[in-house]
Amino acid sequence: MPKQDFAFFHRLRVRWTEVDRQDIVFNGHYLTYFDLAMTEYLRAMGFPYPSGLLDAGSDLFVVKATVEYKASAHYDEEIDIYCRVARIGRSSIQFLFEIHRGDELLVTGENIYVNADPKTKQSAPAPKVLRDAIRRLEKIDPTHQA
Amino acid sequence: MPKQDFAFFHRLRVRWTEVDRQDIVFNGHYLTYFDLAMTEYLRAMGFPYPSGLLDAGSDLFVVKATVEYKASAHYDEEIDIYCRVARIGRSSIQFLFEIHRGDELLVTGENIYVNADPKTKQSAPAPKVLRDAIRRLEKIDPTHQA
Amino acid sequence: MPKQDFAFFHRLRVRWTEVDRQDIVFNGHYLTYFDLAMTEYLRAMGFPYPSGLLDAGSDLFVVKATVEYKASAHYDEEIDIYCRVARIGRSSIQFLFEIHRGDELLVTGENIYVNADPKTKQSAPAPKVLRDAIRRLEKIDPTHQA
Amino acid sequence: MPKQDFAFFHRLRVRWTEVDRQDIVFNGHYLTYFDLAMTEYLRAMGFPYPSGLLDAGSDLFVVKATVEYKASAHYDEEIDIYCRVARIGRSSIQFLFEIHRGDELLVTGENIYVNADPKTKQSAPAPKVLRDAIRRLEKIDPTHQA
Repeated sequence: MPKQDFAFFHRLRVRWTEVDRQDIVFNGHYLTYFDLAMTEYLRAMGFPYPSGLLDAGSDLFVVKATVEYKASAHYDEEIDIYCRVARIGRSSIQFLFEIHRGDELLVTGENIYVNADPKTKQSAPAPKVLRDAIRRLEKIDPTHQA
Repeated sequence: MPKQDFAFFHRLRVRWTEVDRQDIVFNGHYLTYFDLAMTEYLRAMGFPYPSGLLDAGSDLFVVKATVEYKASAHYDEEIDIYCRVARIGRSSIQFLFEIHRGDELLVTGENIYVNADPKTKQSAPAPKVLRDAIRRLEKIDPTHQA
Repeated sequence: MPKQDFAFFHRLRVRWTEVDRQDIVFNGHYLTYFDLAMTEYLRAMGFPYPSGLLDAGSDLFVVKATVEYKASAHYDEEIDIYCRVARIGRSSIQFLFEIHRGDELLVTGENIYVNADPKTKQSAPAPKVLRDAIRRLEKIDPTHQA
Repeated sequence: MPKQDFAFFHRLRVRWTEVDRQDIVFNGHYLTYFDLAMTEYLRAMGFPYPSGLLDAGSDLFVVKATVEYKASAHYDEEIDIYCRVARIGRSSIQFLFEIHRGDELLVTGENIYVNADPKTKQSAPAPKVLRDAIRRLEKIDPTHQA
């Protein structure tokens, strides 16, 4: 998917503590990058964590993560973590990620979150305010999301 | 797959720095656990990293990681990271992981590694000594691995 | 202080994610090592965290940390984190650390903890059971600890 | 020392992976924050790492770190890491740090670096271009720095 089709990205600079002795970012740290981008995505949409999101009746837990590594990010490079919601199910939300360094695609990924009730921690339908906000931004057709 | 069908596991204790404000291990840290288990698996097989593995003509890079989260590990718990090679291709090696806390399955995962020439860093067929060692341990039928 | 004068040490192996592009452990990770050693020290003494220590009426917060780096630990090395309590004040406890790789001293450090009431999180005198256990192990003269 | 007497600070937002189950930043992560601030300080001065600094004939290694914790940073808070060089010796450089959340001082610290020759990794006098740049910014009197 072309970068320009993402409505959101988060830029960060690779830290010293994130690269290994081969001067490449350790594979697990990309999940930290995904987490940071998804947090900023929700903040931009009006749901900072925890207050905004929990107040809206949502807490999100990752149930599946997939990362594909095409090229490596190195120390001190600025990289852009593109982030979007591709699908909202009853209680699950699929986030897609792409990490770019300038015009080069480094990493793609997918996180499946389950929406939980902040009090009971049990899975629950995502609250309407959150679903509506995502659909407005992502132009997802709700009739295709059952 | 039943735990007893794994030839290898690595036990560790969850660290303070690995749990978050919900007292659960952050999703990305499970890739660190996979990395630790795979390192010990190779050491047990006679290929410690870097000297043993590089000397055998192999360096391994993750090209795809998948993690499924079924239940959470918490602070100070002892967990077992089961690890095995399920498939050896020409230059790729598929590792499967299961993380158990006692009898409870917490996480499953898969890492696809590409074997590279330690000097050129280009993908290359996995060296015969490594393939043979894995096949002996895992009882993988080489005729099915092309 | 000679290693043999420490009553306790914790051994661990340096992880891939803890070394940097110079193949040395990042300076901040030694505080993780100190934390692990101190946790095991308290466990060995009968105060695992959280249940044992909090039940005894103690929670410990670091108020000052000092680390001196004499030589570097590298990837995959086994290192020993020696740990002892050198002084117990009214509500503060001074831990000293030494990290050795075999016979070579790599790092020394000191953490000052303040004992807090687990409920109020306010500083409070360390409970008698904890003080007594430490004094028995460390042979600290209580008359010198005011 | 008043904030306004620092010529430089670096702002960052506390990450999910940096807070523990008490929702406070783990004590060791403040050394990562110091490292980030010092890196940006050198970049601002014209010595990005590695190219700028190594090209100038300098590589810096921490030989002593001290951190005093006065109050805790929490998840998602924006904090400012103030950073300055207080003293340049023959081959050692003393950095001082203060971490503020708005007007509240959270943490103070000191890192002593030794300047090393990038090739031999042996300690060596800090190169003149680096000393001069620091002295210009910090208005340190060179006659007091022997």
